[in-house]
Amino acid sequence: MNVGIDTMGGDFAPQEALRGVKKYLEEDKSNGIKITLFGDAEAIKEIIVAENIPTGSIEIVATTQVIGMHEHPTKALKEKTDSSIAAGFQYLAKGKTDAFISAGNTGAMLVGALFNLKTIEGILRPVISSIIPKQNGGTGLILDVGLNADCKPEQLNQFATLGAVYARHVLEIENPKVGLINVGEEEGKGNILTQGTYPLLKENQQINFIGNIEGRDTFNDKADVMVCDGFTGNIILKLAESIYDISKKEAPESGYLNRFNFEIYGGTPVLGVAHPVIVGHGISKATAFSNMIRVAEKMLKTDVLHKLKDAIQPR
Amino acid sequence: MNVGIDTMGGDFAPQEALRGVKKYLEEDKSNGIKITLFGDAEAIKEIIVAENIPTGSIEIVATTQVIGMHEHPTKALKEKTDSSIAAGFQYLAKGKTDAFISAGNTGAMLVGALFNLKTIEGILRPVISSIIPKQNGGTGLILDVGLNADCKPEQLNQFATLGAVYARHVLEIENPKVGLINVGEEEGKGNILTQGTYPLLKENQQINFIGNIEGRDTFNDKADVMVCDGFTGNIILKLAESIYDISKKEAPESGYLNRFNFEIYGGTPVLGVAHPVIVGHGISKATAFSNMIRVAEKMLKTDVLHKLKDAIQPR
Repeated sequence: MNVGIDTMGGDFAPQEALRGVKKYLEEDKSNGIKITLFGDAEAIKEIIVAENIPTGSIEIVATTQVIGMHEHPTKALKEKTDSSIAAGFQYLAKGKTDAFISAGNTGAMLVGALFNLKTIEGILRPVISSIIPKQNGGTGLILDVGLNADCKPEQLNQFATLGAVYARHVLEIENPKVGLINVGEEEGKGNILTQGTYPLLKENQQINFIGNIEGRDTFNDKADVMVCDGFTGNIILKLAESIYDISKKEAPESGYLNRFNFEIYGGTPVLGVAHPVIVGHGISKATAFSNMIRVAEKMLKTDVLHKLKDAIQPR
Repeated sequence: MNVGIDTMGGDFAPQEALRGVKKYLEEDKSNGIKITLFGDAEAIKEIIVAENIPTGSIEIVATTQVIGMHEHPTKALKEKTDSSIAAGFQYLAKGKTDAFISAGNTGAMLVGALFNLKTIEGILRPVISSIIPKQNGGTGLILDVGLNADCKPEQLNQFATLGAVYARHVLEIENPKVGLINVGEEEGKGNILTQGTYPLLKENQQINFIGNIEGRDTFNDKADVMVCDGFTGNIILKLAESIYDISKKEAPESGYLNRFNFEIYGGTPVLGVAHPVIVGHGISKATAFSNMIRVAEKMLKTDVLHKLKDAIQPR
C-alpha cells in the first residue's frame, strides 16, 4: 500500500507535511505502508536530512509547480500539470499510489478528485465529510460539508449510505445511528429537500436510520452519522470550527472543547470516488498530517472502498 | 401602550409569567405601559396576591382554555377559541392591546400571528429573528430562524431590510452591517438561493450590505444582521443554544459563553406582521418574561412598525 502526500500544500509546506510523515513513521513503524512525496525534491531532501526522517519506505516524485491556496481550481489544475496536486492525482489514477493526501487548495483537490478519478458506480455525486467531536467522548460524522450546495433527496440518501459504511469500518462505530439534519423531530417537518429525503432514508436497508435530528443534536450522541446538503453542512462545520477559537479564550482547560481543534482529525475524506482522497486544512501541522496518513491507512486496510461499492450497488 | 401577555404559555406557567411582570413593573416603574394578562383569572389573582404584584397597570382577561405545547397549531387555534393565545391575538387584532407575548406553543403563536394580524404591505412572508451573542460584547440578529424553511431570493432581501431596521431602532446598532450567510466569501459562491440573493442585497438601498459571511462568522463582529433561509437559521440557532448546555459543564465561569443562555434575551420577535408579537422559549422564567415585555415596549416606543413599513414601501 502506497500513500501519496502533497508536500507543497498548506500554510506550513513542505516542513510540516514532512514532520507529519516522520511522526507517522516513528509511531507506526511496521505497518507496511509506503509513502510517496510529491513536491520540490531538493527542499524535501533537505528537510529529510535536517529532521532525520527515516527514508526506507519513502519515495520522492519531483514536481516543479505549486497550486497556491487561492488559485482558481480548474484553471490551476489545467495549467499546472507538473504541480504536486496534479501529479499526485495522476499517480493515484494510474494505480502507482493507493491514496492521496493534501492540505493544499481545497477546490483543486476536489476538482482533481472529480476529474481524475472514477466515481464509485452508481454514485450520483461524491461528498466530503467531517468528524464532529461528540460530548460523550466519541466522534460523529457529518456529510456533505461543502461539495454539493444544492442537493436532491436521492443524493442525501446516498450520503447516508456512504457515511454509515465509513463510520462502521473506519470510525469503528458498530451500528452507526444515521440522523437527518432537520428543523424538527417529527416526520413531515423540514424544507422540500428534507421532507423528500426522510421517506428514502426510512426505506434504506443499508443504514440504521433514527429519524430527524436538530441543530442542538450536533454534539450529542443522538446520531453518529449526520446527513445534510453541502450548504447546511458547511455552515455547521465552520461554526463548529469557530467554537475552538472561542474555547481557547473562554475555556482553555476544557477537554471536550479542546477536541474542537479540528487539526487533530487530520482531514476530511472525499467519499464516492474510487480511491481514498483526504483533504486537510490549510493550517495543518505535523499531527494533522500524521493523522491523515493514518486515516488513509485505515481506509486501505479496511478495504472501505469495496464496502462502499457494495453498499451503493448491492449484489 | 398596552402589552398583552399569555400567562398560560411555557413550562412554568402561569407563575413565571407573572413573576416576570412583577420584575418588569419593579424595574421599569413609570414608563406608562399597561399590561393585559390572558389566562385563568383565579390562578392569576392568587399569584398576584401571593407574589405581591402591584396591580395599578394590570388588567386581566379571563380565558378558559389552554393550547398545550405539543398541540397541532392550526387545529388548536381553531378549536380553542377561548384559549389565552387565541384571545391574545383577538385583542391585538382589534387594537385593544398593542403587542402580544407568549412562551407557549410556538407554532400556535406563528399561525396566530399570520392568520389574525395583517402583514405589513408589500411583505412576501413574515419572519422570525433571534439575537446572537457576539464575542465583542454586542449582539447580532439572525433571521429567518424557522418560519420559512424554503425561501426565494426576494424573501431573503426583505428579511435583510426588516432585520436592518429592527437592529437600528430596537437593538440600537447605528448602521448595522448586513451579511448573507453563505459557504464562501466571494460573490458567486453558494447554493442557488444565495447566488440569487447576493445581487439583490447589493442593490438594496435600505441596508449596509457587507457581503457573504460564513458559519465561522456567526459569533464575530463581521455582520450585525445575518440573513438566511429559515432552515439554515433554525439549525444555527439551535446549535448556538446547545453551546450553552456545553458551556455550563465545560466553562461555567465564561462570561461570554454564559451569554448563550438564550433565556436572557427573552424571545424572538415576529417581523413583517402589523403589530409586535414576541415568541418566547417554553423554558422562559421571570427574567425572560420581563425582557420580552421590555422588547415589546422598545418596539412600541421606537415605533419600529412604521419604520419597517417605510423601509419595505419607500414613499
